[in-house]
Amino acid sequence: MPLDDLIDRHRDLLTQARTAIGARTFFSAYPESPSPRVYGETAAGEGTAAYEARLGTEWALPTPGARGQVATERSPFGPELGVRYPRLPADADAVGTLMSAAGAAMPAWRRTGVDGRSAVCLEILARLHERIFELAHAVMHTSGQAFVMAFQAGGAHALDRALEAVAYAYAEQERMPASVEWEKASKRETQRMSKAFHVVPRGVALVVGCNTFPTWNSWPGLFASLATGNAVVVKPHPRAVLPLAITVEVAREVLTERGFDPNLVTLAAEDPADGLAAVLAVRPEVRIVDFTGSSAFGRWLEDNATQAAVFTEKTGLNTVVVDSTDDIDGLTANLAFSLSLYTGQMCTAPQNIYLPRGGIDTDRGRLSFDEFGAALAAAVRDLLADDTRAVEILGGVVSDVVRDRVDATAGRSDLVLASRAIEHPAWPDATVRTPAIVALDAGTAGGSGDAAEYTSECFGPVSFLIGTDSTAESIERLSTTVHQHGAMTASVYSTDPAVLDAVEEAAVDAGVALSVNLTDGVYVNQTSAFSDLHGTGANPAANSCFTDAAFVTPRFRFVATRRHLP
Amino acid sequence: MPLDDLIDRHRDLLTQARTAIGARTFFSAYPESPSPRVYGETAAGEGTAAYEARLGTEWALPTPGARGQVATERSPFGPELGVRYPRLPADADAVGTLMSAAGAAMPAWRRTGVDGRSAVCLEILARLHERIFELAHAVMHTSGQAFVMAFQAGGAHALDRALEAVAYAYAEQERMPASVEWEKASKRETQRMSKAFHVVPRGVALVVGCNTFPTWNSWPGLFASLATGNAVVVKPHPRAVLPLAITVEVAREVLTERGFDPNLVTLAAEDPADGLAAVLAVRPEVRIVDFTGSSAFGRWLEDNATQAAVFTEKTGLNTVVVDSTDDIDGLTANLAFSLSLYTGQMCTAPQNIYLPRGGIDTDRGRLSFDEFGAALAAAVRDLLADDTRAVEILGGVVSDVVRDRVDATAGRSDLVLASRAIEHPAWPDATVRTPAIVALDAGTAGGSGDAAEYTSECFGPVSFLIGTDSTAESIERLSTTVHQHGAMTASVYSTDPAVLDAVEEAAVDAGVALSVNLTDGVYVNQTSAFSDLHGTGANPAANSCFTDAAFVTPRFRFVATRRHLP
Repeated sequence: MPLDDLIDRHRDLLTQARTAIGARTFFSAYPESPSPRVYGETAAGEGTAAYEARLGTEWALPTPGARGQVATERSPFGPELGVRYPRLPADADAVGTLMSAAGAAMPAWRRTGVDGRSAVCLEILARLHERIFELAHAVMHTSGQAFVMAFQAGGAHALDRALEAVAYAYAEQERMPASVEWEKASKRETQRMSKAFHVVPRGVALVVGCNTFPTWNSWPGLFASLATGNAVVVKPHPRAVLPLAITVEVAREVLTERGFDPNLVTLAAEDPADGLAAVLAVRPEVRIVDFTGSSAFGRWLEDNATQAAVFTEKTGLNTVVVDSTDDIDGLTANLAFSLSLYTGQMCTAPQNIYLPRGGIDTDRGRLSFDEFGAALAAAVRDLLADDTRAVEILGGVVSDVVRDRVDATAGRSDLVLASRAIEHPAWPDATVRTPAIVALDAGTAGGSGDAAEYTSECFGPVSFLIGTDSTAESIERLSTTVHQHGAMTASVYSTDPAVLDAVEEAAVDAGVALSVNLTDGVYVNQTSAFSDLHGTGANPAANSCFTDAAFVTPRFRFVATRRHLP
Repeated sequence: MPLDDLIDRHRDLLTQARTAIGARTFFSAYPESPSPRVYGETAAGEGTAAYEARLGTEWALPTPGARGQVATERSPFGPELGVRYPRLPADADAVGTLMSAAGAAMPAWRRTGVDGRSAVCLEILARLHERIFELAHAVMHTSGQAFVMAFQAGGAHALDRALEAVAYAYAEQERMPASVEWEKASKRETQRMSKAFHVVPRGVALVVGCNTFPTWNSWPGLFASLATGNAVVVKPHPRAVLPLAITVEVAREVLTERGFDPNLVTLAAEDPADGLAAVLAVRPEVRIVDFTGSSAFGRWLEDNATQAAVFTEKTGLNTVVVDSTDDIDGLTANLAFSLSLYTGQMCTAPQNIYLPRGGIDTDRGRLSFDEFGAALAAAVRDLLADDTRAVEILGGVVSDVVRDRVDATAGRSDLVLASRAIEHPAWPDATVRTPAIVALDAGTAGGSGDAAEYTSECFGPVSFLIGTDSTAESIERLSTTVHQHGAMTASVYSTDPAVLDAVEEAAVDAGVALSVNLTDGVYVNQTSAFSDLHGTGANPAANSCFTDAAFVTPRFRFVATRRHLP
């Protein structure tokens, strides 16, 4: 299996990516603009055709142990996808067959070595990049992301995050030399030995995909595990199978071409009633689990899949502290976009916005609590005034649960901004909602206020404008709620350096990343691969992040051999 | 708290250690010879005096939450130590007080930064090195190691392993820049941001010490956690408190001198009936656990301390495959020393020696199974023929359980070598035993042979010479027993390159380090810091190793902050 051509082909990109993870300056390998000037005149049309050709068909991908089929996807924009995937039942026969196949594929992959495995991973990414338009449609019609966002977050940025994981995997695997001569001299004698360090995989890796970001949230773990020598079983969310089915198809195609066992990467599609993830996660063969989803199941995995290294991204209370600003228009515009983008269905979207009940100082004078709320509401309304533009920001509502959650705010007396339904100009059956903002009270020494509401995660387009005694109390709420419930993001607006220092100290202590005075084109819910970490692993919202060394090092071990030299 | 002088003082050593962990060639910072030419004429006597001054006294070290005292140490060489330590009861009041104190100490330590923390750790190591003779006596009279071994393994080599951990901690913490300017240009606009990366500790770290290597096995985790910003609670084995009490004393002395809260490092001595480790390990404040000891409690920690990153070194079936040799004298002498050193009470000492029933080819012609056994037994007898020399290799038997285990082999009909009791010339109450070797059969297709015996760990000076059909079967037993039960070490003797390749493949696949044809002054049960890994984390004997990046990265997180630049 000569891989020299692949290693040569991808050497420069890998070198750049390895440099980028240390430098943390801007780096991106996959253009984020779907423009024909970047991707060519025919790419978009071909991608659409490739996506549409999948609909209503039987997926040809084999999965060891699979029996029967499942078709579980309906687009948040309306249509049923109707793709029939091989179903992996949750019984011991089916799962055992899959585990055996995955395990049998590993030894040859281990022996391939770091350079070869990395090159194969980068070739898979290159092939996925060739299919980025098809993937964007698949992500759009499973997650509900608008097309451009699906192209960027589900395509280009997901590829960057995957490349980042491969670069980290490479860097960590090469920390030990492949071989070394060791010599210890003493007055009696000199001992000389030759020693070799082998990278060995940890075992079968399970990736449990999510509905909202099927590629972006799954690829880092998938490629980190594969690059370090493990076989990967991909268990997609039943409503977001297609993007990961394409991923598995491409991976198997490259592996097969290069003479590897394609069962290094397998698709485990389920009937939702089967609870397959919980069955797979505690199999003794499974030594790595990557999960994005609910806190309840994430905690269950952490507590029960103790035979495995478990990497979870769960949910939390993303927090904004508003103290003062010299750019109220920038503030409200920035925040309005963060609340609206993909209908607030990002794990990084703000939920709890703390503001002194007495209002704040701004470049347009003092604004009362209500005036600030009105300004924020106006900014959201302005952003989403035009339905045709609005749907390209909002996308579709991913599930009935989220839809019901936002619809339940209708008629509340404490609404700062009411949600409205939008009819999608192109997709009449799409479920589209604008964000709702609710005014709450943080509570006082004498009472808990609305803490019961704002200390629970309300995933989707409902955020809370929460009145506090003071910015000091806002900071205290940030600290206690993140310590207890976790958060993926935090941000602060203040013109006072002392306040910024205090919030930074609170955020670092609580273990949440902080964005300061975002009033321009960077949003708190977006991170940039190779520079920003996604999550920290330092609070209950996630036990790991995309991507640092800790995300990679538990996926493999070094095994040494030594012998005397003459 | 200016730490510049400390940082300067230890910069060169840290630089050397950081280079060494990458190079894996020979490196040691602390001389292993207790000779007066190295340590000065008075060091040995002063160390003895310092140790003896401790005996029968009350330990002055304060521990938050402690009530009353415990005195639980009796030397395997005879004397009661009689040191009375503050007792940490296992109740919620006491443990809660300790946790609060440890937690309160962390923020200032976090803010100190990587260079300052590393320098403080290296200063603690320098002070421990100044007390190496005292530590050697403390290790000797708690573990039963003979003095020179206690000086080396419990002193110099333990310091090297601790330095290695600090070097890894430094290297991993500096993977992110402290700050960076990020710029993303697009045709519409250029975004510029300043970003900072903060190292944050994971939480309170618990170190659970063991009886046999109280410093060597505890210091890597202790210093890895401390260097990465965590507070460390040290829970020593009740029979090996003193070496860790001295460690905690020295750490607190340095921390106090530099204005840090000494409760960053605390001693939690227990009444053995309290089961304190299990109580501490599942406290929500405890986010890191380092453990060396029994497989049963190690697995319990892995399964139950799910709120923490758990690093375990448990037990396993250390294996030797004997196929052929061109140096039978070197082979038997090397193996005899490995079986005898510290009475086989090393987690790395060989237990299962597989040999074809038909015998092996050697430089002295064909040796039958029985002839090989006789040669090995003779080598052990020769090594330990002189009682005065023998006790310096054997040391004392660490516990009644180990003594009973070896004494129970007396009179067995399958003995290759009987154990004998030795009267220690200097310590008349010492318990000293020579190794026993028992002949077993691996079993055949028709029966399991003596598998029930050799697939259980028999910690201490009992090893098994196990007859197999062939070397191929020996390799198969290596593979299956290590996969199922784990091993810290494996070794092979063969003159056939194909056999060596097959054993190497089996060892790498099973995830155990392999030593090849050791016939000289390197022993399978010894590893060299900065070059050899101790354990692999890739088989059931341990879920981690001393020391690689995976041992360090889960102990801290990066938390980033970002803001616009003009």
